[in-house]
Amino acid sequence: MRRIAVLGTGLIGGSIGLGLCRALPGLDVAGYDRDPSASDRAVARGAVTRAETDAGQAVAGADLVVMAVPLGEFEALLGAIHPFVSPDATVTDVASAKTAVVAAGEGVLGSRFVGGHPMAGSERHGIDAADPDLFVDASWILTPTATTSSAAYASASELATTLGARVVGVGPDEHDALVARLSHVPQLTASALVAAAAGAGDEEALLGLAGGGFRDVTRIAASDPELWISILRTNRTAVLGSLEHLGRALDDAAVMIEDERWNDLRDWLTKARRARLELFAKPVTTGEPVALSIMVPDRPGVLAEVTTAAGKLGANIEDLRIVHSTEGGRGRLELVVAGRTAADDLALALEALGYHVDRPDINFST
Amino acid sequence: MRRIAVLGTGLIGGSIGLGLCRALPGLDVAGYDRDPSASDRAVARGAVTRAETDAGQAVAGADLVVMAVPLGEFEALLGAIHPFVSPDATVTDVASAKTAVVAAGEGVLGSRFVGGHPMAGSERHGIDAADPDLFVDASWILTPTATTSSAAYASASELATTLGARVVGVGPDEHDALVARLSHVPQLTASALVAAAAGAGDEEALLGLAGGGFRDVTRIAASDPELWISILRTNRTAVLGSLEHLGRALDDAAVMIEDERWNDLRDWLTKARRARLELFAKPVTTGEPVALSIMVPDRPGVLAEVTTAAGKLGANIEDLRIVHSTEGGRGRLELVVAGRTAADDLALALEALGYHVDRPDINFST
Repeated sequence: MRRIAVLGTGLIGGSIGLGLCRALPGLDVAGYDRDPSASDRAVARGAVTRAETDAGQAVAGADLVVMAVPLGEFEALLGAIHPFVSPDATVTDVASAKTAVVAAGEGVLGSRFVGGHPMAGSERHGIDAADPDLFVDASWILTPTATTSSAAYASASELATTLGARVVGVGPDEHDALVARLSHVPQLTASALVAAAAGAGDEEALLGLAGGGFRDVTRIAASDPELWISILRTNRTAVLGSLEHLGRALDDAAVMIEDERWNDLRDWLTKARRARLELFAKPVTTGEPVALSIMVPDRPGVLAEVTTAAGKLGANIEDLRIVHSTEGGRGRLELVVAGRTAADDLALALEALGYHVDRPDINFST
Repeated sequence: MRRIAVLGTGLIGGSIGLGLCRALPGLDVAGYDRDPSASDRAVARGAVTRAETDAGQAVAGADLVVMAVPLGEFEALLGAIHPFVSPDATVTDVASAKTAVVAAGEGVLGSRFVGGHPMAGSERHGIDAADPDLFVDASWILTPTATTSSAAYASASELATTLGARVVGVGPDEHDALVARLSHVPQLTASALVAAAAGAGDEEALLGLAGGGFRDVTRIAASDPELWISILRTNRTAVLGSLEHLGRALDDAAVMIEDERWNDLRDWLTKARRARLELFAKPVTTGEPVALSIMVPDRPGVLAEVTTAAGKLGANIEDLRIVHSTEGGRGRLELVVAGRTAADDLALALEALGYHVDRPDINFST
């Protein structure tokens, strides 16, 4: 990474710039924002090293382009930068729904585009809220497809790890179903709980009796509606599917209460309790770096297959490259995985997928 | 308050005892618990001044009895103490659903029973987690009915204010509908969100991608299922009604997304956002004490009517007593309300209900 372009210098773009400039002094970071005063403030904060008022100018010569604009501006910006993006540059984004965005990105930029979604944010927004530590210890999802080049994946992955995040590979469709369940439907539910409570005709003073539980459950209902409309628009299908799932779970509970099947309800609550406790008790896989080397056919989809298999296992890929064979038709995928157990699990999973996995004896401690 | 009995020396009973013993040194506080080791530990912690292994023994001679036992033990305990409760004692409880409990309490003890529900708690339980500050600045709901004597209300109210809480009068039915909306259904919803997320067949590692929003919304799903079963059993009807409300709100959202009515969805999210922001921005009514004096007919229900009118306005009644006229048929209800604006609002509301309100000129600062 030598020259970076950050398009959209708000909370996320600004935080990426701040983190990069801190980690890699001397880096050339061009900032563009629809609002020139935002990119000027990004320069003043040290989040970018220069502000460009033209997006094409910002991406020209960059080896990594990060698109951190609102979803509604994404496609227009993609068209605007297309003629200026270098043939060997990587372009990634940070949008919270991926299927549509990745299709658009690949449609215009081909294998250079890899979708990304850092799982970090803040209730604040704008460059003034930017924070170089925003991504430290957060997950950063990358959504490779059969089209994605390994160079683009490796470059986006380096961006994330430089900022202190942990990279997880997930397919775009699976990502969207996952965030519908884990983020978008919980968001709608918080709003629905407030709507149901506030709409029941109580005096306002009585609603003030709500305790800490209600406060927790509905906190995110105070989020920016504009932001959520664009997310829900983009992830409409997955959200509808996940809302249906939730509706069924609530119906199950209602029927158990109606029929006074208290033992069944106890089991249901206990199962949810256990799942909730386990969810946030998972240790992040870390450990000594272990190298895996995999002979791969030179066909599309190998990269996505390998990285999303690691994502499902929670195995942390710290480094990755594909060495293409000069004879063509085959290549070698070299991975560095954090921790011996995670490496063993991933090797088994890849062997089950038909790959042959070697363990080159690399001594990382020297 | 000279002699108190605390039945059930767990988190809530123990915290009540600790707070009372700290506020009123020299108070005689008898503690009873089904588990004698719990009442012994309550003595050791200074939450009660003596442990009784017999509930009847504990309540004999007490002028205030606080029942802080699990809902499932309530009715049996009521029967056990009934022969030993003094005719002029007040009995109150702390259960989180009130209609059934108040009916049972009044059925056995008549006007001496007044339902209570302190809106405070902890994820921990048992005497070892008890905290004398648990109720400081919390709301403490009292649920007077047409049966409740003003002496019992005043005594339960004094208990709550001694512990630092703010008393709010709400009818038992209204209370139950309110907690269904503000507590019981949010609880079920948190479990349903976990059930829907965990039941979708994702790999566990991917569920670990859940962010802070999901963490907040589902935090209470880790609560004790046993406790919730007894609450949901007791408040079954109101919970079913409120679940239906929530289901309709979620259906509304799904239809707007399905039909791509984004402007309507934006309005819906904005309304919920505003309601959520207002909900916890309410300042608690405080201010100089203002006395109101109300001529009241000597008929049942006056106390409940006046105190729940104050609850709906968020007016904080700091002191209250009924002076019965020697001529019979009429009496005088004397209230002290916190703050001039709250007193004005309450006076207007009571006049609208047909009461004549006087403002005796009492100088509280001397």
